[in-house]
Amino acid sequence: MVLDSYVGGRWQSGSGEGRPMFDAVTGEEVDRLSTEGLDLAGAASHARTVGGPALRELSFHQRASLLKALAGHLREHREELYALSARTGATLGDSKFDVDGGIGVLAAYASKGKRELPAGTVLVEGDVEPLSKDGSFLGSHVLSPLRGVAVQVNAYNFPCWGPLEKFAPAFLAGVPSIVKPATPTGFLTAGLMRLVVDSGLLPEGSVQFLAGSVGDLFDHLTEQDLVSFTGSASTARQLRTHPTLVRRAVRFTAEADSLNCSILGPDATPGSPEFDLYVKQLVTEMTVKAGQKCTAIRRALVPAEHLDAVAEAVIARLSRIVVGNPNNPDVRMGALAGLEQREEVRRSLKALADDARVLYGDPDHVEVTDADAERGAFLSPVLLGADPESAAVHEVEAFGPVSTLVGYTSTAQVVDLAARGQGSLAGSVVTGDPDFAREVVLGAAPWHGRMLVLDQADAKSSTGHGSPMPQLVHGGPGRAGGGEEMGGVRGVKHHMQRTALQGSPDMLTAVTGQWFPGSARTTTEVHPFRKHLEELRVGDTVVGGPRRVTEADVEHFAEFTGDTFYAHMDAEAAAQNPFFGERVAHGYLVVSFAAGLFVDPAPGPVLANFGVDSLRFLTPVKFDDELTITLTAKQITPRDTAAYGEVRWDADVTNQNGDSVARYDVLTLVAKQDG
Amino acid sequence: MVLDSYVGGRWQSGSGEGRPMFDAVTGEEVDRLSTEGLDLAGAASHARTVGGPALRELSFHQRASLLKALAGHLREHREELYALSARTGATLGDSKFDVDGGIGVLAAYASKGKRELPAGTVLVEGDVEPLSKDGSFLGSHVLSPLRGVAVQVNAYNFPCWGPLEKFAPAFLAGVPSIVKPATPTGFLTAGLMRLVVDSGLLPEGSVQFLAGSVGDLFDHLTEQDLVSFTGSASTARQLRTHPTLVRRAVRFTAEADSLNCSILGPDATPGSPEFDLYVKQLVTEMTVKAGQKCTAIRRALVPAEHLDAVAEAVIARLSRIVVGNPNNPDVRMGALAGLEQREEVRRSLKALADDARVLYGDPDHVEVTDADAERGAFLSPVLLGADPESAAVHEVEAFGPVSTLVGYTSTAQVVDLAARGQGSLAGSVVTGDPDFAREVVLGAAPWHGRMLVLDQADAKSSTGHGSPMPQLVHGGPGRAGGGEEMGGVRGVKHHMQRTALQGSPDMLTAVTGQWFPGSARTTTEVHPFRKHLEELRVGDTVVGGPRRVTEADVEHFAEFTGDTFYAHMDAEAAAQNPFFGERVAHGYLVVSFAAGLFVDPAPGPVLANFGVDSLRFLTPVKFDDELTITLTAKQITPRDTAAYGEVRWDADVTNQNGDSVARYDVLTLVAKQDG
Repeated sequence: MVLDSYVGGRWQSGSGEGRPMFDAVTGEEVDRLSTEGLDLAGAASHARTVGGPALRELSFHQRASLLKALAGHLREHREELYALSARTGATLGDSKFDVDGGIGVLAAYASKGKRELPAGTVLVEGDVEPLSKDGSFLGSHVLSPLRGVAVQVNAYNFPCWGPLEKFAPAFLAGVPSIVKPATPTGFLTAGLMRLVVDSGLLPEGSVQFLAGSVGDLFDHLTEQDLVSFTGSASTARQLRTHPTLVRRAVRFTAEADSLNCSILGPDATPGSPEFDLYVKQLVTEMTVKAGQKCTAIRRALVPAEHLDAVAEAVIARLSRIVVGNPNNPDVRMGALAGLEQREEVRRSLKALADDARVLYGDPDHVEVTDADAERGAFLSPVLLGADPESAAVHEVEAFGPVSTLVGYTSTAQVVDLAARGQGSLAGSVVTGDPDFAREVVLGAAPWHGRMLVLDQADAKSSTGHGSPMPQLVHGGPGRAGGGEEMGGVRGVKHHMQRTALQGSPDMLTAVTGQWFPGSARTTTEVHPFRKHLEELRVGDTVVGGPRRVTEADVEHFAEFTGDTFYAHMDAEAAAQNPFFGERVAHGYLVVSFAAGLFVDPAPGPVLANFGVDSLRFLTPVKFDDELTITLTAKQITPRDTAAYGEVRWDADVTNQNGDSVARYDVLTLVAKQDG
Repeated sequence: MVLDSYVGGRWQSGSGEGRPMFDAVTGEEVDRLSTEGLDLAGAASHARTVGGPALRELSFHQRASLLKALAGHLREHREELYALSARTGATLGDSKFDVDGGIGVLAAYASKGKRELPAGTVLVEGDVEPLSKDGSFLGSHVLSPLRGVAVQVNAYNFPCWGPLEKFAPAFLAGVPSIVKPATPTGFLTAGLMRLVVDSGLLPEGSVQFLAGSVGDLFDHLTEQDLVSFTGSASTARQLRTHPTLVRRAVRFTAEADSLNCSILGPDATPGSPEFDLYVKQLVTEMTVKAGQKCTAIRRALVPAEHLDAVAEAVIARLSRIVVGNPNNPDVRMGALAGLEQREEVRRSLKALADDARVLYGDPDHVEVTDADAERGAFLSPVLLGADPESAAVHEVEAFGPVSTLVGYTSTAQVVDLAARGQGSLAGSVVTGDPDFAREVVLGAAPWHGRMLVLDQADAKSSTGHGSPMPQLVHGGPGRAGGGEEMGGVRGVKHHMQRTALQGSPDMLTAVTGQWFPGSARTTTEVHPFRKHLEELRVGDTVVGGPRRVTEADVEHFAEFTGDTFYAHMDAEAAAQNPFFGERVAHGYLVVSFAAGLFVDPAPGPVLANFGVDSLRFLTPVKFDDELTITLTAKQITPRDTAAYGEVRWDADVTNQNGDSVARYDVLTLVAKQDG
């Protein structure tokens, strides 16, 4: 049966026979994929004209809430996905890695969206840049969602996690997605997308699904679209040079499997905890998902003197790995995604044969439990051993349960070997020696998108070499595709256009909805602390003071707090201080007095001062200086799910000469009117 | 004469006849360019093996100091550059724009480097990401300089500014540059690079110069290199698909000229200040550098009802522009860069002829002062008028003193017209109406790398539509090349690899040299405030307290500061507060007491507390809670040019249950031993 695509607002199937997908365990045909005859230009247009506008109507927080709801919905239905996943050859553990991992990305982006993005739709990035001395001309950066579509081309090895890790940041940015699965495991992605779409949670047009190839879709892309690709380096090259992508400078990001290394430190001698951690992690990386992970360890770099000990320990563990039907609870490693994929691994193993010897496993034969070894795509874990100088080891990837052990003799050499992968997604260093860790990480980092230092201290809590985390960037240079995905809010920004904005303070305030220094302040009869969140406006200001700071105040404060620092207390010593020259008031006294001047004490909408940001003491406060505080609402962030929101205030404490003595942001929680 | 290249550590000239360059004013041959026979693979290798290591030996601050020194050196010699610049057709004003503008970028990056980058060589980006609940596994991002070379391919229109704006962020990042000029004005870039290299200020290998084409250089690039290109969209396409760049995912950024627009607001009626600003800016953008600016206004979008008035005012100004020998002080607009460039503009004008009518200027004839109109590349400013729906106006760029006036009738239409440029470097909105500014900027931002709002408030201080600023990003989507340059520290990061780093707190501290929460603390007998900058170590800690906070303390503090907020003073009202439930201590009291607990009062190396960052009140402090402060040196930043440095301390105030009640960073200035 040809599976339905979801394009243009309805489920519909492509014509023709379609491309078959097979059960990785039994070899039976599962379903077929075809997008033939579907209007893919129309899909792009649907995303742009229906999905994009609907998404842009929502605030970042609202989009985050939908991601959270979607995560919950998928969590409820995950058993259905596990069942489909087993047919891709995955054990239950593998399925959880893929399915629960993907749901975890949705949840993480939901949380990041609530905590780190504003309530509105405009994202202001970084500090204000003063562009003139008089403050009348400022610069800032704003990010807007691209007005196009994110075309997401996924790999077969993570049929759930892959689409979700690409979708979540796009959705949060306000950009609609078109999801294309890889063929071998497309039936699982189809099942996922059926759940996503039929949840009814997402605005129409914000996500579409192609049960088959992208057809002529790329021909219809523009500078407002982007393509995120995960898969082989050769396909990445092909897509990257697509004439339309090149002509219109369509954003393109690629994540390709790479020759990732894991490095054992010389301190981690056999018997040490780090030695065991290394061996255990290597075997895990070889066997989870039958080694079909872009991040898996392909090159195990170990001190030459421990080569044999590592091999022995790894082989001991590998020999206990039961291969077979992933539904059988005794089975530890399932099948590859299909027979074609197994053939591809065998071809790679042949290409490695001149350079590497087999230390464990038979590429052509494996004992299987509860399955047919020939009809299912089963393969033995294979451990190779090679000379560090053999070229193939650093070039040929066998995308399966295969790793090569290589010995090294110096720190400089192992850094060089790591770099010979020409760009990797992930690397790990297993060591208890901080100096070795530092030298290797800093040496190899330019070739890595992610590096893990594993030792006793994080052994229990570590998420491991092979697990990209939504908070951290995923992607690596060169061979790994040169792309960057996720990384928290960074991944959201990949879907947005950064625009440098220049203008007067008032215009920047008008455009961004945030108050910029120098912009108009509104002082009304009502104290702004008496305004509920809905009544408060950016620019609302209270001015307090002046209040004279006396010598007695300073001495009293010193005595009361115990802060008798000489610059406050000892005239002679203070005179020697290069910044003060005489006794000065405590900075904490200044901000305490300022609060006394701006606070409106009676119960009201302002519930709490929960923090202060970027406090700078700019001019020393001398005795008998008179302080004035000007407090201005700068950013108002309602919380969808709470009876209050956050208000960030610009605080400017000035002296009798009008000089700022302290500037900072005061953070408060302010109740809603109907809260 | 074939000009010398600076490659492999020496000045040497290419072989063969070379490509001639011509004086834009007289048509005489100036010099020739050739890199034939030079070892360009060797140049890349020299950069990697000599320049890169030398640069990476320097801290960010040291590199910034060298940029500052270089800016000073070039400023001293700028008259030499002005003289060469005149031969490119540039007036003295144009030359200053190019030469002084480029020096300004060096100075701006020097300043950014000192203020916004760390003292060392490792750049940690963003907040720490907790990856486990118990805090034993953390994530962070570190940026390392690429270990390759930045190949900088420049455009002919900014022979000084262009190379310097590419070089400055690369150098600051620690990446060596190979500078390639554009042919027509290559003699000026050669003069600049002669000054740069012969200054002797920069480490050998950190900059090389090709007086000619890149030859086979691209064939030798790797994933550690990057190419920054400025020029035509067609050349950008060609370079982007270079097989080596594609195969090795070499970073490629392009900045191409685009059909930038300037929008007049409906409020800016004839006679209004904004109307005059608009007209003046348009004429400036048409005539500065004879309109040869990637950012120049090609499409002047004005309310249809004011089309005639704008045309009239622009023509009146254009008719006063004296064209001719740029060395003649009466001349306001010089020559184009060469006769070829003039032919290219004339071809573009022909392509526009069906869609646009000439309102001012004769593409084939111009009166010139003090020069030969035929031998020099002179062209009249040309103002065109066109229907908004004419396609060519939004597609064909005449890269010279040419702009097209287009009328619009609604805000939605003008946003749409702006977008029809398919990606622009810069746009401007000239209006006094904040609502119009907001609607147009937010509507058009996805198509723009930079947008300027010009009004009376910033008229005097604005740097104008056409001037990219080093603090702000430069580059735009789509037609503008899809690249991003400068933007302050962002531009530095473009030359670095971002690596997600995972590990235990101690390992992250060891790798980055910054203290991560949860990492070991060192408590010694000596109070850390008694240690000079050189003696202090990351992790050095002082613990103070406990100190009990009594009701009397709170009441006293309230009375003393005037902060009688009900949550501190009124038990009944405080009970209603959703966060407190009972009376609590002031946050400012908590941090004041904390200072009293950690301060070492006698004169010593700690000179001042200059600020506080990221203060968060995490747990309310109730009466009789006992506070303990733990203060730990987190980041130590010596200043090369001062007798002190900055120390950032992690401050953690806990209560008797061990819960954090406040966390923040305390910023101090600490003297050097020999300061």
